Amino acid sequence: LRTIIIDLLGTDRAPDPEIRGVEEFIKENRRTKIIAVGFPELEERIKNIERVEFVGVSEKVESSDKPAEVLKTKKNSSIAVGLRLLKEKRGDGFISAGNTGAVLAFSIKILGRLNGVKRPAICALFPSTHGYAAVLDVGANAESRPIFLYQFARMGEVFVKEILGIKDPKIALLSIGEEETKGNELIKKTREIFEEHNVKNFIGHIEGNEILKGKADVIVTDGFTGNVLLKFGEGVVERVGDFFKKEISKSFLYKIGALFMKGVFVDFRKEVSYEEIGGAPLLGINGNVFICHGRSNYIAIKNAIKTALRYIELNVNEKIRKVLSE
Amino acid sequence: LRTIIIDLLGTDRAPDPEIRGVEEFIKENRRTKIIAVGFPELEERIKNIERVEFVGVSEKVESSDKPAEVLKTKKNSSIAVGLRLLKEKRGDGFISAGNTGAVLAFSIKILGRLNGVKRPAICALFPSTHGYAAVLDVGANAESRPIFLYQFARMGEVFVKEILGIKDPKIALLSIGEEETKGNELIKKTREIFEEHNVKNFIGHIEGNEILKGKADVIVTDGFTGNVLLKFGEGVVERVGDFFKKEISKSFLYKIGALFMKGVFVDFRKEVSYEEIGGAPLLGINGNVFICHGRSNYIAIKNAIKTALRYIELNVNEKIRKVLSE
Repeated sequence: LRTIIIDLLGTDRAPDPEIRGVEEFIKENRRTKIIAVGFPELEERIKNIERVEFVGVSEKVESSDKPAEVLKTKKNSSIAVGLRLLKEKRGDGFISAGNTGAVLAFSIKILGRLNGVKRPAICALFPSTHGYAAVLDVGANAESRPIFLYQFARMGEVFVKEILGIKDPKIALLSIGEEETKGNELIKKTREIFEEHNVKNFIGHIEGNEILKGKADVIVTDGFTGNVLLKFGEGVVERVGDFFKKEISKSFLYKIGALFMKGVFVDFRKEVSYEEIGGAPLLGINGNVFICHGRSNYIAIKNAIKTALRYIELNVNEKIRKVLSE
Repeated sequence: LRTIIIDLLGTDRAPDPEIRGVEEFIKENRRTKIIAVGFPELEERIKNIERVEFVGVSEKVESSDKPAEVLKTKKNSSIAVGLRLLKEKRGDGFISAGNTGAVLAFSIKILGRLNGVKRPAICALFPSTHGYAAVLDVGANAESRPIFLYQFARMGEVFVKEILGIKDPKIALLSIGEEETKGNELIKKTREIFEEHNVKNFIGHIEGNEILKGKADVIVTDGFTGNVLLKFGEGVVERVGDFFKKEISKSFLYKIGALFMKGVFVDFRKEVSYEEIGGAPLLGINGNVFICHGRSNYIAIKNAIKTALRYIELNVNEKIRKVLSE
C-alpha cells in the first residue's frame, strides 16, 4: 500500500480543492493511503474519508514568503512537516500546491539531492502538437551552469521515457538560433558538454516558436528563461480567453456561434489546462516531491496524486540516479 | 521630402510583399520618396511607381547566413548597400525584413551606435489588454549586462512616449518573482542601477504572466529571454489557430458556429498580427533602422514605412541620445 502525503494549505482556494481532490481520488483508488497535513480545524472535514490520516500543523507558508526565510521561520508549516514525514518514510511522496520556492528550499534541506545531481529542476509539460513537450528547468534555479543544463536534459529524458512512455525522446536546447554559433555562452558550453557525452537523440537547438511543434520531447533551458516562458504561456492563454469572451459578448450572432461551438471551447480549455497531469515533479530531489499550480482545482489535485503514484511505482528517481552516475 | 530606403530581398516571399507594400504606400502618401534596393531584374517592376528610385545589388543575405560572416562576404548585399545609402544621407531611414542578425551587424559597422549607447536593442510591441507593451531587447544581444538593461529601459521609454504617445510610461523589469530578492544576478544588479538613477515610473519586477496585462508600458529583459519569449508568443498563437481550425473541421455544427463567429476570428487575427506597426526599430543605432518580420505581408511593409516616417519625424534617436547623455 502506497502512501501520499498532501499539503492541504497550498492552493489559492485551499483547503477546498485539496480536500475534494483527496475525496475523489480515494473513491477511485482503493490501494493508496493519504496523509493530509493542515491546520487542526481541518481534521473535522477529513476524518470521515477512508484511508486518510490527518496531521495538524500550526503554520502556513504564504505565496509571498521568501524561501530563504521560511526555512528558519516556518519549520512547523504544512510544507516542512509534510516533507519531514516523507523523510521519515511515513509516506512515498509529497504533493503541495503552495509556494514553489519554499517547497524547493525545504526539499533540498530536508531530503537533499539525489546522488550525483548538481541542481534539482522543475519539469513542466507543455501541450504540443503531438502530446507533450517536457520543458525544464521552469524555475528551480535562477542561475544556471552548463553542467546543470546537461543534467536537466538527462533527468527530463528519464521522466518522459517513464511517465509519457516515449521510447527515444528527442532532446533539444532552447536557444535563439538554430546554428551552432548562435545562442549565449551558456548554450554554447552546454552544447559542448552534450557533444562530449555523445548524447543520443540530441537534436540541437530549437527556437521559441518551435516549442509547441512537437520537434522535441525534452526541451532544456535555464530556470529563469523557463519560468518566464511558462508564465508567459499562461498569460497568453488567459489573454486569448479574455479576448474571445469580450468579443463574443459584443454581438448576438457571435453568441449563437459560440453556443454552436461550445465543444470547441471546452476542448480548448482542456488542451491548455494543467488538470490532466496535475503535478510537476521536482527532479533531482532525493524523494518524490510534486508541485501543483496555485490555481489548481480538485481535478488537478486528484490527477497530481495519480501522477505521483505512477512516478513512485516506476521508480523514476532511482533511474535518474543511475543515468547521472553513469 | 523624406526618403525611405527599403530592402526588396528581405521577406520569405520577397520581393512581392516589399514591392506591393511600396506601391500601396506611395498611393497613400504623396510626400515621401522611396529608394528600393534589390537585384537588377527587379528594376522593371519598380520603375513605373512614382517617387521610387531603384538601386541594384548583386547579393542577398540568406536567413541562414551567419551575421559575422556576411560582414566580410556580402558587402554588396541589399542590406549592406541600403545601410551605406543611409550613412551617405541619401535617405532618412532603412527598412529590411531580412536576416535580423545581419541587419544589426551591418548597422553597427556602417552606422555605429548613438553617442552614449552601449548596446543597441530590438524593441517589439506585444498586444496587451490596453494597447501595447514594448518589450526589449528581443534579440539584438545574446548576452546582457545590467547597464545595458538600464539603457534598454530608457530607450524604450522614449520610444513609447513618442511613438505610442504614452505620457508617463511605466517601466518594469521582467523577472521570476515580484520580490526584490527574487530574480537572477543580472536582474538584481539592474535593479540597483535603476534605483541609483532614481528612474521615475519604475514599477519594479513583473512576471511572465503579467506581460500582456497592461501593467507596464516598457518591459525590459535580456535579448536571450526576450527573443525566446517573442518567438514562443508567435508559436502559441499559431498553435491556438491550428487547434481551432482542426477542431472546427470536425463537426458541421462547429462549422456553422464558426461562420457566425467569423468576425471574432478576423479580429483575433488582427489583434495578434504585427501588420499594424509593421516594423521594429533598432534602438540605439546612429541612424533610423527598422526590421520587419520575415513573414511580413504587403500591409506590414506599408505600415513599417509609416512607422519609420513617424519615428524619423519625431526625432526619436536624438531624444534617446539626449536621455542617455543626461
